[in-house]
Amino acid sequence: MDGGGKSMPAKDTTKLLKQLRQVMKGTKNMREAIQALIVPSGDNHQSEYIAPCDCRREFLSGFDGSAGTAIVTQEHAAMWTDGRYFLQASQQMDSNWTLMKLGLKTTPSQEDWLIKVLPEASKVGADPFILAADQWKNLSKAMRNAGHTLVPVKENLVDLIWEDQPCRPCEPLLVMDLSYTGMSWQDKIVQQRAKMAEKHASWLVITALDEIAWLFNLRGSEIQYNPVFFAFAIIGLNSIRLFINETHMEDPVVREHLQLDCDTAPSFKIQVLPYESVLSELQTICSNMTAKDKVWISSKASHALCEAVPKMLRLQTVYTPICIAKALKNAVEVKGMRRAHVKDAVALCELFAWLEEEVPKGNITELDASDKAAEFRRQQEKFVDLSFSTISSTGPNAAIIHYKPTPHTNRTLSMNEVYLLDSGAQFRDGTTDVTRTMHFGTPTEYEKECFTYVLKGHICLGSAIFPSGTKGHLLDSFARATLWDHGLDYLHGTGHGVGSFLNVHEGPCSISYKSFTDEPLETGMVLSDEPGYYEDGSFGIRIESIMLVVPIQTKYRYLNRESLTFEALTLVPIQTKMINVELLTRKERDWINLYHQSCREVIGVELEKQGRLQALQWLIKETQPIAD
Amino acid sequence: MDGGGKSMPAKDTTKLLKQLRQVMKGTKNMREAIQALIVPSGDNHQSEYIAPCDCRREFLSGFDGSAGTAIVTQEHAAMWTDGRYFLQASQQMDSNWTLMKLGLKTTPSQEDWLIKVLPEASKVGADPFILAADQWKNLSKAMRNAGHTLVPVKENLVDLIWEDQPCRPCEPLLVMDLSYTGMSWQDKIVQQRAKMAEKHASWLVITALDEIAWLFNLRGSEIQYNPVFFAFAIIGLNSIRLFINETHMEDPVVREHLQLDCDTAPSFKIQVLPYESVLSELQTICSNMTAKDKVWISSKASHALCEAVPKMLRLQTVYTPICIAKALKNAVEVKGMRRAHVKDAVALCELFAWLEEEVPKGNITELDASDKAAEFRRQQEKFVDLSFSTISSTGPNAAIIHYKPTPHTNRTLSMNEVYLLDSGAQFRDGTTDVTRTMHFGTPTEYEKECFTYVLKGHICLGSAIFPSGTKGHLLDSFARATLWDHGLDYLHGTGHGVGSFLNVHEGPCSISYKSFTDEPLETGMVLSDEPGYYEDGSFGIRIESIMLVVPIQTKYRYLNRESLTFEALTLVPIQTKMINVELLTRKERDWINLYHQSCREVIGVELEKQGRLQALQWLIKETQPIAD
Repeated sequence: MDGGGKSMPAKDTTKLLKQLRQVMKGTKNMREAIQALIVPSGDNHQSEYIAPCDCRREFLSGFDGSAGTAIVTQEHAAMWTDGRYFLQASQQMDSNWTLMKLGLKTTPSQEDWLIKVLPEASKVGADPFILAADQWKNLSKAMRNAGHTLVPVKENLVDLIWEDQPCRPCEPLLVMDLSYTGMSWQDKIVQQRAKMAEKHASWLVITALDEIAWLFNLRGSEIQYNPVFFAFAIIGLNSIRLFINETHMEDPVVREHLQLDCDTAPSFKIQVLPYESVLSELQTICSNMTAKDKVWISSKASHALCEAVPKMLRLQTVYTPICIAKALKNAVEVKGMRRAHVKDAVALCELFAWLEEEVPKGNITELDASDKAAEFRRQQEKFVDLSFSTISSTGPNAAIIHYKPTPHTNRTLSMNEVYLLDSGAQFRDGTTDVTRTMHFGTPTEYEKECFTYVLKGHICLGSAIFPSGTKGHLLDSFARATLWDHGLDYLHGTGHGVGSFLNVHEGPCSISYKSFTDEPLETGMVLSDEPGYYEDGSFGIRIESIMLVVPIQTKYRYLNRESLTFEALTLVPIQTKMINVELLTRKERDWINLYHQSCREVIGVELEKQGRLQALQWLIKETQPIAD
Repeated sequence: MDGGGKSMPAKDTTKLLKQLRQVMKGTKNMREAIQALIVPSGDNHQSEYIAPCDCRREFLSGFDGSAGTAIVTQEHAAMWTDGRYFLQASQQMDSNWTLMKLGLKTTPSQEDWLIKVLPEASKVGADPFILAADQWKNLSKAMRNAGHTLVPVKENLVDLIWEDQPCRPCEPLLVMDLSYTGMSWQDKIVQQRAKMAEKHASWLVITALDEIAWLFNLRGSEIQYNPVFFAFAIIGLNSIRLFINETHMEDPVVREHLQLDCDTAPSFKIQVLPYESVLSELQTICSNMTAKDKVWISSKASHALCEAVPKMLRLQTVYTPICIAKALKNAVEVKGMRRAHVKDAVALCELFAWLEEEVPKGNITELDASDKAAEFRRQQEKFVDLSFSTISSTGPNAAIIHYKPTPHTNRTLSMNEVYLLDSGAQFRDGTTDVTRTMHFGTPTEYEKECFTYVLKGHICLGSAIFPSGTKGHLLDSFARATLWDHGLDYLHGTGHGVGSFLNVHEGPCSISYKSFTDEPLETGMVLSDEPGYYEDGSFGIRIESIMLVVPIQTKYRYLNRESLTFEALTLVPIQTKMINVELLTRKERDWINLYHQSCREVIGVELEKQGRLQALQWLIKETQPIAD
């Protein structure tokens, strides 16, 4: 596991693994020994980003990438992660660990590896609160087919050996009034109960943190970049149960918002219960139900909670109705998203104007640029946080799709390399996420060629017209067609849903060849359009804007169906220096010119208002029309 | 159920339903009564086309469309079918039946309807040999969730009351030698056993008729349009069991081909067993297995056979490895397919030249044109049969996607209407399927506009370049993009796999927004490219060619992946009179001209060789290049 001169020392995990293997043999907490323990990333809510107290896989292995699953047996310790993290994982993990490189043909799946290394009729343990029900089902089936058993481990075994495990955070909640949400939480409850009635469901279990935040018009700061707080909720037709650290409820503003002390109608009376009691409460609810009632729960919720609902009573869908409702931004949310993107564009215009001045001096690193972007964003009204870890990357670093600059990898921006910045913010009125790729000197013809193919894909998807109800994965190839024509491609999806001052990645819509379960696109959904091209060891290109799904009038109207298209919320110039104009069609040139005209008009006014004149000059320069 | 003056009388089903309801109450053959019986289309092999003895739904209801499911309870009789058959079903069924129009929002699903009409804790019966395992699983779950049970009915109840049910056909088999198949059946067995070994499967159960025909290099004529015969097969690592009417094995040519009388290696010795014994034989095999062995069976095989394999022993995939191998045509098969398409094009050139002469006289009907097409095809070498029921449709009839002319609907071709012909043949060397849409007078501007949009979609898909391993459903939108731009669309998939002198529709590949389980596209697969546009009551357009997936050199080669594209096997002119040339890009004009050049060169030579000079003249006229 040689990581080169600059690498950090790997974590010594010998003692930890010994302790873990001891508890795996069976303790007072467990009925029987397990022969393997699966330690995935994740928390009780199947969050993409997790709090420090939930970083169990990192604690155990030392590997702190965002994706990875550890499996420990009495003999082996193995870590599965993807191409983004091969180098990092090999540097951060000591020789107790075997790195399993996902995506290589020679790498066994977790299932196949387990089947190979386990003694006959083994028990494989996992925390049923952390594995989602659909993951559990698949893994359990594979184990059963091989004569093993996947068993739920009641107490998390890593927690047992984690002496200085941080506490679950408990930060003040933020109340979102109607001027941000456009809909009261009571109206949202009414809306959800109507959906429940349609499906004959008497109960709706909500486990995703952004769904709870959206439903109750509350935000938190308990997970970095995601304005959420730890809670579960169970909505009945006449009751509301909120499972949350009760400290939150000491705040009078929150009490007032949730009407805890009012004489409200019983069906809007929120019962506040301890966070930890959700499982037992759900079990109690189920034990009092008749066969005609249903409990609606997502197959992406934890196995523990899904299993608590007897099969006969379970209505399981991939997405909860809240997830779908949350994706359809209302007029107030759209207005907020627009405003957030204007502020975000102001910050980026300032940053790029500044970089153009400073980069030639040769002193600006990826981290400097990242810090400066954050500084400019912080100056904007209602700024709360970044929406994800900034990807500030130049030269070969930009070929690493989820690169995050560190002091060890930090590279100086130069006149000779392509620079890629993928960054975003949480404003109280909206969430942003934008990528621009640029060159501060003279790009090579090849770099321009690749950039132009990516741009053509970005435009093709961004200007697509499609019938209402089309699934996003059916549009993914539009963004790839020109790259494919030249034998090029990128190995990530093209678009993800974006929350409204919520998670920067949200379901149920997306634009990706990898997804089959995405919900149809509808007016009001917000997604990214971000094709790219990456050449290992050399450069990386990505062009990403956030798009709002909007209706469009077409010449004809087959079956009276509505047609939809995208409107860019992101209004940040796309560097024309990187474009080989000869490769564009007239339509594409028009698109670029029209886009830049919008940037100039909308962001120009705001830059002037804010008195940011250097950035304004930069904007005007960068939005000159491309000549025919 | 008023079908207008021309309709046939509906079948009187009062007596039949009474008899059926009697046997549903429980007979000597059944342990207990059932409250509902599901009678789908289909046979023991989940065939798309079925033999007369398997037309149970038609026998029971009178409705003979290709798709439909009947459900009978003691009180109700209901038929679910799709938009193609609303009129036909309403005409063919008497007032005992309720027509359930699939695709309308107000139409209940079979599950919801059953749940609504059934008494509590009902038993719903179905023939487990006819429902596929995946269908059974979904239906069974829905019933269980509603407190009912789906029960397998051992003996088909419709057969019990069907007095003059035809016998299962038993027609002579056709031996396919290496000059057609390119691979001996023994080599195919070796290939399959290698796939089985990879998956640790000791047994492979084959139930699809085209898979059995392909594997053994045999063809039959027991189902119209599909050159297959009734059989099951179970392949072991050292044994081969063929379940088939033993009469077939009296033919010495077949005996020789299968080496039944030779002293072959035991692992290539075919055990011939009665068709009916497949279930008991599979049960015996399973009862002698250890937990380490697996039986590989498709989830599209019957519930009865899947259930016979205990869960622990079952390796279930959507497609069998035979289905996948069959789709990858080898060099000999490709050569045969090319030859078949040349002959098919000759027949169609003759037909269209003839129609151009005859239609102005005003005496040619849809049925005449259909008959004439069959006549010209029959004149070609190695013609066996049509590959499906010819869709010969003019004017409003062409808007009915799966239209089949009958004496009642037969319309005269005219100078004022668009004519659509979708037809194909089974030649011993290959299967064809082609649609051309044309006008014998002067099309309206609107018809030309729509035709041109469809053509642009056909070209966009047909000339797409994509990485090896791309799934077909990701290309479907290419064929729709221009239609979508103008608010138009078509509600069917764009492409289906085509067999090699086998079924005209075959898996596992397709190009359809409806499919998620299609296998990735690879060199050697053969698919249709058939976008369309249909305006109810007015006209219909479809342009369909059969395409071979071929490798293509691209400028770059990302990750060293191969790029693929399509090569048209169908070489029949696309009527330029229907094109609004102004709507085409230069690339599209070039595509058309190049395509017509191929038609002229390849088919021209053949027409000359066959001395079909009138058709040759027509071909030359129709393949004039489009001017700039």
